[in-house]
Amino acid sequence: MAIRRITSACLTQSTRRANAFLSTPSIHFRPNSIPQARHFQITSIRLEQQANTSAKRDPAPKIIRGQSKVFKDADAAVKDLKSGAVILSAGFGLCGTAETIIAAIERRGKDGLNNLTAVSNNAGAAGGGGLSPLVASGQIERLILSYLGGNKFLEKKYLSGEIAIELCPQGTIAERIRAGGAGIPAFFTPTGINTLLQSGDIPVRLGPVDQATGKSTILEKGKPRETRIFDGKVYGMETAIEGDLAILRAWKVDEAGNCQFRYTTKAFGQVVGKAAKVTIVEAENIVPVGDIHPDNVHLQGIYVDRIVPSTVEKVIEIRKLKEVEGQAEGGKKSEALLRRERIARRTSKELKHGYYVNLGVAGLPTLAPSYLDPETKVWIQSENGLLGMGPYPTEDEIDADIINAGKETVTMVPGASTFDSAESFAMIRGGHIDVSVLGALQVSANGDLANFMIPGKVFKGMGGAMDLVGNPDQTKIMVATEHVAKDGSAKIVESCALPLTGARCVSTIITDLCVFEVDRVKGGLTLTELAPGVDVEEVRSKTDAKFAVADDIKSME
Amino acid sequence: MAIRRITSACLTQSTRRANAFLSTPSIHFRPNSIPQARHFQITSIRLEQQANTSAKRDPAPKIIRGQSKVFKDADAAVKDLKSGAVILSAGFGLCGTAETIIAAIERRGKDGLNNLTAVSNNAGAAGGGGLSPLVASGQIERLILSYLGGNKFLEKKYLSGEIAIELCPQGTIAERIRAGGAGIPAFFTPTGINTLLQSGDIPVRLGPVDQATGKSTILEKGKPRETRIFDGKVYGMETAIEGDLAILRAWKVDEAGNCQFRYTTKAFGQVVGKAAKVTIVEAENIVPVGDIHPDNVHLQGIYVDRIVPSTVEKVIEIRKLKEVEGQAEGGKKSEALLRRERIARRTSKELKHGYYVNLGVAGLPTLAPSYLDPETKVWIQSENGLLGMGPYPTEDEIDADIINAGKETVTMVPGASTFDSAESFAMIRGGHIDVSVLGALQVSANGDLANFMIPGKVFKGMGGAMDLVGNPDQTKIMVATEHVAKDGSAKIVESCALPLTGARCVSTIITDLCVFEVDRVKGGLTLTELAPGVDVEEVRSKTDAKFAVADDIKSME
Repeated sequence: MAIRRITSACLTQSTRRANAFLSTPSIHFRPNSIPQARHFQITSIRLEQQANTSAKRDPAPKIIRGQSKVFKDADAAVKDLKSGAVILSAGFGLCGTAETIIAAIERRGKDGLNNLTAVSNNAGAAGGGGLSPLVASGQIERLILSYLGGNKFLEKKYLSGEIAIELCPQGTIAERIRAGGAGIPAFFTPTGINTLLQSGDIPVRLGPVDQATGKSTILEKGKPRETRIFDGKVYGMETAIEGDLAILRAWKVDEAGNCQFRYTTKAFGQVVGKAAKVTIVEAENIVPVGDIHPDNVHLQGIYVDRIVPSTVEKVIEIRKLKEVEGQAEGGKKSEALLRRERIARRTSKELKHGYYVNLGVAGLPTLAPSYLDPETKVWIQSENGLLGMGPYPTEDEIDADIINAGKETVTMVPGASTFDSAESFAMIRGGHIDVSVLGALQVSANGDLANFMIPGKVFKGMGGAMDLVGNPDQTKIMVATEHVAKDGSAKIVESCALPLTGARCVSTIITDLCVFEVDRVKGGLTLTELAPGVDVEEVRSKTDAKFAVADDIKSME
Repeated sequence: MAIRRITSACLTQSTRRANAFLSTPSIHFRPNSIPQARHFQITSIRLEQQANTSAKRDPAPKIIRGQSKVFKDADAAVKDLKSGAVILSAGFGLCGTAETIIAAIERRGKDGLNNLTAVSNNAGAAGGGGLSPLVASGQIERLILSYLGGNKFLEKKYLSGEIAIELCPQGTIAERIRAGGAGIPAFFTPTGINTLLQSGDIPVRLGPVDQATGKSTILEKGKPRETRIFDGKVYGMETAIEGDLAILRAWKVDEAGNCQFRYTTKAFGQVVGKAAKVTIVEAENIVPVGDIHPDNVHLQGIYVDRIVPSTVEKVIEIRKLKEVEGQAEGGKKSEALLRRERIARRTSKELKHGYYVNLGVAGLPTLAPSYLDPETKVWIQSENGLLGMGPYPTEDEIDADIINAGKETVTMVPGASTFDSAESFAMIRGGHIDVSVLGALQVSANGDLANFMIPGKVFKGMGGAMDLVGNPDQTKIMVATEHVAKDGSAKIVESCALPLTGARCVSTIITDLCVFEVDRVKGGLTLTELAPGVDVEEVRSKTDAKFAVADDIKSME
């Protein structure tokens, strides 16, 4: 029987180093403060919540079949929601979020409705929107999410211990919610193995600073994942997430509750709508039953209990426009820009005609397609549920319902398709993407990648990064990064000190100085290409890992 | 830690009785003939196959990205498929089957292409079609399916040991294939717990009759499922299924491989297309890239490797028409018909306005809606991926792409929606259906249901029945059945002798004589209604289980 429990032996050397690192800067782990019963307890979110309060706790509104599903407004639809509810909230960034319903929940006030747990990919943006009002009002006291991003207000609330945050990779959140709706109590996934997620070392709730050590105490640790080997590969077990309430926004909703979404608003809308006791949809258009073609129903009426008109305008989180011809050409290019261009140009050579590729959320990887020769067409997948992403839009093309994983407005190429987040990460986790290019904080000589967290400094969340590197045997993982960090320290290291995004996942590293091939199985780097004017010695001096030099070393350009 | 391995203690009393029963009539289990290593081996189907032949075995065609996906015909698209391949075959009955591709595989001949494993909901029909040609040619030597139905040819091949059949509930097959495509090696499901599926006692391959005992030997036993408790409920672990090849038929396919399906042809098409190394689609219409709206792509081009024109006409398996007004009224109704009408009329009273209901595949349960009063509208779910099933069509309304779970032509009501089989069974398993009505061979005093198998006599498969009864806490399970079997024996028994479909799942039993309420938790029947002219003594004489009599016993009509 190939079963492995979580033991430190399960974690790679680098993960243990990373764990050790985590406890150094400002967060100190005090075992006595953690209720041991939480570990390995096989219960769904809903049940855990219940155990915390009362066995009879049921904060979901009561639904009687056969009554009209259409409510006059969101206030009427949320008035019987009770404190302590678990809310599954749709949206990727501010695309598809149920702004009208969230405003109505906020109007219930903290005295009327509190102690809420929200499950959502994000929890509002830096500039507000999404779940931000409920975080600010203090009604939400616990979040399960994959990405805070630049939401400094939320980060501060977490660091000061005012809110609990259970970080969970984006694909895993989507799949856990799907499982909740599908009657599947648990499943196994490669995502997060050999990371702090597996070991339970991403703290969920911080306490006051310990006067003796000067470090934050940890009131609640993460939940370690039980692991198990299938076909020689280690997977972690994830349990289903169910909600008392799901809230989402849809384009067209018929009076029977059938929903149709436009483009990337699907993301989490279809997923959360199926996994709660009560689902409330805010409709941009309420249409008669029969108006939506049976093949175009994205969320079936069986899942939808209440329909309210959407009255809050949708927001464009990042209005990104196509650069006007020649605009980028003006002036002399800086040294930094030239370095970035070199990396992007070299990365583009890895993208072959007909490839399906994911280029992450922002930064260097996303620049590669502009260096493709016109004959080379690649299909770009955006983790929020778009295959066939095109360039940024012109002013006329802007559509709030078409965004990329960086929440920027984009276009779609002919042949594009849109789908929900569970499907998007099934595609990613299943290894159907040919090449995935990511940035790095650190990458190690055996292909470990760290790119999501700097303990005590950066707590943005992993988003979809852990999922993207979860199947490196079928999806080639490349890192595109500047060779050294801004402070001059090496990014390519013998062993990552920062928390890992994934272990032994990177096959190729492209920097402004050179290209390394990585032996993910035996470990070890081979220098295969050098940028013009760069010699092996320069690379050696800026690299904190040993590497071999290929006999037939090539020029990078 | 709430982990339970399979032990006889895990099985209910009735399951053990059923197991004992299984070994009596004609099938004898010889432990020595079964390779023990198969048990609890945590490998995917693909890997098991490989282990049987060679580590380097790779029967899937090689795909190079960027080449044209459009092939001139199916022969060209299957010519590099090798023997030993695992083929995932779409279709529900003969709806959505890849008839053109199957014919091309058949033309490869048994000498050219053999030792195939096919995974499919059905394997052709009694009258041919679907996988039938490949079963007849002997190219398929192993099947994983949920339902043979009336396919006597296949049943005979199984009973004579010429073909191996791994029966698997429909929802579990769909979910296992989805998992295969989604990078999930295993998951837990309530389906099949406390049945022969869990204990591994549905034989996969039969051998010659043992001369000493006169019974068939078992060359390969089923694989027992490992069980585990989550939130106090027992679940079984199911592993992913991946294919070397997936074959399916779609309505519109663009040259990039994006597929759009019509109505109930979705079923397994979307699911299998994502879980194989190579996917071949036969297209009723090949259209230019960009012709399918991004929101209407049901299977994304990333999953599709080869496209061939569909040249074999689609078949209607059961051409069922609406009865002409008054046609059913002619003549005197037989006693049997009156009994059936009584059951159907009483069943209809359980279907409240606005309910979402599943009425199984055929027989008594499906008659109930015709007795609903005109004000009562219910949404009928058909497990093949249709919510909002309408009556049988008129001649003009017939559409080969709209069928029910009994493979009959049907219509859709306004507000209907169609979806794939993984979604359909997520809906079922997740407990979103309000009431599910099934027929019964036997039903026990604690709510155990047997309705799929008579060992040694009937080997049709469980179809979706085990899934339909898998979540009886959230979906009320009712049995609608004649009180006694055709031979006069009791169907309502203290403990089922026949293999169970599910344990402790039935809440209400409606027969032509009476209504019983079942206490699924403590066990025990209460007689609550009697048909006119029937007294308690008559019920007692025709029931092989003890029952209490309600104080306020009511008349059934």
